[in-house]
Amino acid sequence: YGKNTIKFLRLHKEGKKQFVKEVEVCAHLRLTSPQEYLEGNNCLVIPTDTIKNIVLVLAKKNGIPSLEQFAIDICNHFMTTFCQVAYVKAYVQEVPWQRLHEDGVPHIHSFICVPDGIRFCEAEQCRNGPLLVFAGIKDLKLMKTTQSGFEGFYKNEHTTLPERHDRILCGELFCKWSYGECKDFDFNCIWKKIRECILEAFAGPPDCGEYSPSYQKTVNCIQMHVLSRVSQVQVIEVVLNNTFYNVVDMKNLGLTNDKEVLVPVEAPYGSCACTLGRKKFFEA
Amino acid sequence: YGKNTIKFLRLHKEGKKQFVKEVEVCAHLRLTSPQEYLEGNNCLVIPTDTIKNIVLVLAKKNGIPSLEQFAIDICNHFMTTFCQVAYVKAYVQEVPWQRLHEDGVPHIHSFICVPDGIRFCEAEQCRNGPLLVFAGIKDLKLMKTTQSGFEGFYKNEHTTLPERHDRILCGELFCKWSYGECKDFDFNCIWKKIRECILEAFAGPPDCGEYSPSYQKTVNCIQMHVLSRVSQVQVIEVVLNNTFYNVVDMKNLGLTNDKEVLVPVEAPYGSCACTLGRKKFFEA
Amino acid sequence: YGKNTIKFLRLHKEGKKQFVKEVEVCAHLRLTSPQEYLEGNNCLVIPTDTIKNIVLVLAKKNGIPSLEQFAIDICNHFMTTFCQVAYVKAYVQEVPWQRLHEDGVPHIHSFICVPDGIRFCEAEQCRNGPLLVFAGIKDLKLMKTTQSGFEGFYKNEHTTLPERHDRILCGELFCKWSYGECKDFDFNCIWKKIRECILEAFAGPPDCGEYSPSYQKTVNCIQMHVLSRVSQVQVIEVVLNNTFYNVVDMKNLGLTNDKEVLVPVEAPYGSCACTLGRKKFFEA
Amino acid sequence: YGKNTIKFLRLHKEGKKQFVKEVEVCAHLRLTSPQEYLEGNNCLVIPTDTIKNIVLVLAKKNGIPSLEQFAIDICNHFMTTFCQVAYVKAYVQEVPWQRLHEDGVPHIHSFICVPDGIRFCEAEQCRNGPLLVFAGIKDLKLMKTTQSGFEGFYKNEHTTLPERHDRILCGELFCKWSYGECKDFDFNCIWKKIRECILEAFAGPPDCGEYSPSYQKTVNCIQMHVLSRVSQVQVIEVVLNNTFYNVVDMKNLGLTNDKEVLVPVEAPYGSCACTLGRKKFFEA
Repeated sequence: YGKNTIKFLRLHKEGKKQFVKEVEVCAHLRLTSPQEYLEGNNCLVIPTDTIKNIVLVLAKKNGIPSLEQFAIDICNHFMTTFCQVAYVKAYVQEVPWQRLHEDGVPHIHSFICVPDGIRFCEAEQCRNGPLLVFAGIKDLKLMKTTQSGFEGFYKNEHTTLPERHDRILCGELFCKWSYGECKDFDFNCIWKKIRECILEAFAGPPDCGEYSPSYQKTVNCIQMHVLSRVSQVQVIEVVLNNTFYNVVDMKNLGLTNDKEVLVPVEAPYGSCACTLGRKKFFEA
Repeated sequence: YGKNTIKFLRLHKEGKKQFVKEVEVCAHLRLTSPQEYLEGNNCLVIPTDTIKNIVLVLAKKNGIPSLEQFAIDICNHFMTTFCQVAYVKAYVQEVPWQRLHEDGVPHIHSFICVPDGIRFCEAEQCRNGPLLVFAGIKDLKLMKTTQSGFEGFYKNEHTTLPERHDRILCGELFCKWSYGECKDFDFNCIWKKIRECILEAFAGPPDCGEYSPSYQKTVNCIQMHVLSRVSQVQVIEVVLNNTFYNVVDMKNLGLTNDKEVLVPVEAPYGSCACTLGRKKFFEA
Repeated sequence: YGKNTIKFLRLHKEGKKQFVKEVEVCAHLRLTSPQEYLEGNNCLVIPTDTIKNIVLVLAKKNGIPSLEQFAIDICNHFMTTFCQVAYVKAYVQEVPWQRLHEDGVPHIHSFICVPDGIRFCEAEQCRNGPLLVFAGIKDLKLMKTTQSGFEGFYKNEHTTLPERHDRILCGELFCKWSYGECKDFDFNCIWKKIRECILEAFAGPPDCGEYSPSYQKTVNCIQMHVLSRVSQVQVIEVVLNNTFYNVVDMKNLGLTNDKEVLVPVEAPYGSCACTLGRKKFFEA
Repeated sequence: YGKNTIKFLRLHKEGKKQFVKEVEVCAHLRLTSPQEYLEGNNCLVIPTDTIKNIVLVLAKKNGIPSLEQFAIDICNHFMTTFCQVAYVKAYVQEVPWQRLHEDGVPHIHSFICVPDGIRFCEAEQCRNGPLLVFAGIKDLKLMKTTQSGFEGFYKNEHTTLPERHDRILCGELFCKWSYGECKDFDFNCIWKKIRECILEAFAGPPDCGEYSPSYQKTVNCIQMHVLSRVSQVQVIEVVLNNTFYNVVDMKNLGLTNDKEVLVPVEAPYGSCACTLGRKKFFEA
């Protein structure tokens, strides 16, 4: 089992207009025989330097029409070229460069990095098995300043948390979904649609929102919404890393504080995760 | 000399619409006498816990109409309340929460974190001195994929760098400017205008850009542009941390590479900085 | 599925001598029913705040004689107290405080943080299943300046790496091993012995070392050595994140460089991993 | 003004025994004319690539007998070689590799990274000015579990902190000192002595320690101790970033907690800093 990380830039032009894709690729390989571990025999080992060269050559030849297509290309190359490869996984992650606009006019060659959620994907294949494709978004930080509570939870002698019906809901989302054995999807378009679904399900309608009785329920809402709207998604995993905020008690300072000033609570730091599929329910 | 970092959230409502400001405040104090260092006499020391309380109380009472106004409020409070304070500096930095939009409609209480450049400011005052205000932007990552070169530099026996007239210009910008002894500025509006000026000067006109002969010259262009457009700015400091990219040599792999695939060069990692004022020229 | 991270300090005294343990505990729980996700019904949910209280109470009552015993205590508590818990895992990691010494004399209450490899452990249990205990070390950075090479690897048209028989071997080790259903082990003593085995296997004899033909073979040597010396270990997983160094080519600068000056190669960044058990061989 | 960061390894052998030094060097240059900023004229600019080459060549030719000597060599080279350089500063920082020992026997070529305080130094020179040398230690984390308090501080209506005479003192130290215009010092030996002085002053006698009435007083003790013991030190700056710990209130959980379980307080995060010289007293 070995893995490599390579970071590079792929540029292309259409007329004078420039396009840029900066990606980090991580290729995992497992060979059919572990002889390099047991015997120190390197004759089947593909050096990380060679893997780097292959990834760069594929980027040069095929470009990166979508992260998913590029990950598929990498898997295909290793499976068809090296008979000693038993398993290959390609993880591709994007640096979120966006074209600059001046007064609404797009700039032909200037870009700004806007990390409001990082797009990634994975393609993996075992020899003689199907090629599976996953995609996802990570580091997506969201907040609702109201319409969130936590009540009716289990209580015993170690319980000190009060019930709350108007707290802050804030967290960092990680979502990863499976496309199954996909063919000819418009991966860029689907990804954008899923991102929109996630934001809609998190926030609720723009004029009133939707009450969240727990982080767990919000996780489920996101999953249900994506599954109902995007037929290409087979299974969706969501992890929500919570940041809790406490309303500062200002009584000793002679003031009331009607949820106006809050401080983040560093400990405990919680997260909840759930994986939801089309027919079966998995929870891990 | 002591300093404190406090992070908190300030919410307010206008009707049902919610507004959020999350800030990190760092207060620096210097007392008139160093007796707590020399003699271990704490009688004039203001504990960090008290400083935290004061910052939170000011946020509760005044809100945070702009980062700059809040920093000014902190300075004023310490100078007028504690006669043992000889110097105070308040640094305020924002977590870049932006209101979510669904199909163009703004959401009343949901926000997304979009860190495409972090806004910060500083106010500082010595007893019997003027109150000085600075503002800035940091962690602003920009790239030009063409219209950048580096030629005609000094050469000797240690030179191995080739001249280039079509390289990538990529870097992380830090800009900090001084408003002098400002009064009644619309800090939010000015800050947005300066951010636009920085992007314009970096990128050049949207249809063709502007050739950059060096990172240094781009730094200077940004400074000149801001000074010429925003009369409130007295002095502006710009630091540009460069990320270099090398075109991958693919000759050994049997391919030409016409600036299509590039890899970041981790070392040397460079940066250039310059401080420019209205009449005098400072370089440090 | 939910998880929590709590960081705290546990002090105790023997006479005037003080002892300190600072740990980070992460508790994972899965409930028998996912109703809080599907229905927003919180009646079985144990809040993260309660979990924090339980961990702190256990630390207060039992102390932390070893990380492993503390993780076992946490598992036992949740399994015996909450019938709605289907699965519990406790991860415990140590802040590496070491007692200060002055001229060889240990200080009674002063400590220094020495992060030369971080100790951690995990205990996990499914309802009606055995309690399994794992331990490990992470962030252990090691280097051999000679006695390492990489030759005889697979070559094709994408190969540009030269063969080397005297390179630097440098990397960051992660090792995790299983004790099975352990009882009454002296976890502190065993952990120290395993750490020594890892260092011995990595470095070889002090007077001459041992030649490593690949990172993979070094990974295997560490595993074989631990399994042969420490009978309590059932299975051991080792991940080695490689840092490659290139000898700087100084020909253009008129100098020879006999492996005297080397620069780290940031990309590709590789790692190799292997899991080895007593009878069966797993590779993942 | 420009700066560069270069990281590299310098190896040398004495017989079969191998020695390693891994350093990060940052060179700051200011030229006599700012024409590259104002006019985009690069004819005096020394590219970062050339600076990197020079640093590597100096390492190859001179080795790194001490960080300080290497920083001095860099300054001297730039001042004597380039008449367009008005100012040069070289910052050198060490990766803390230590030789591995097996049963007390030192290994000839294996090393472990032990980051218990990072050694660094700076040399700087203006044209026609003296060469000044500084050295220091950073990221040194220390803790006293008793013999620390904070009482008698200034109180007003914003004070909520209770007085304490037995708290934890924990922090991360940064110390930097000046050697003035040093000549022919044994920098390695002096640095080790100063590190010992810092630890002694922080901890007090091993059998009983010494009471600290405040972080500020501890900072001063460290400075006074170093100045009194190490005659080569002219001025010493100390910054102590405090980590506060609170004794957990367990009354609601039916338990007393006699300073046995404590949690770190993330906010406010404080630091105190002081600069002390031989005759004059500076505080900043």
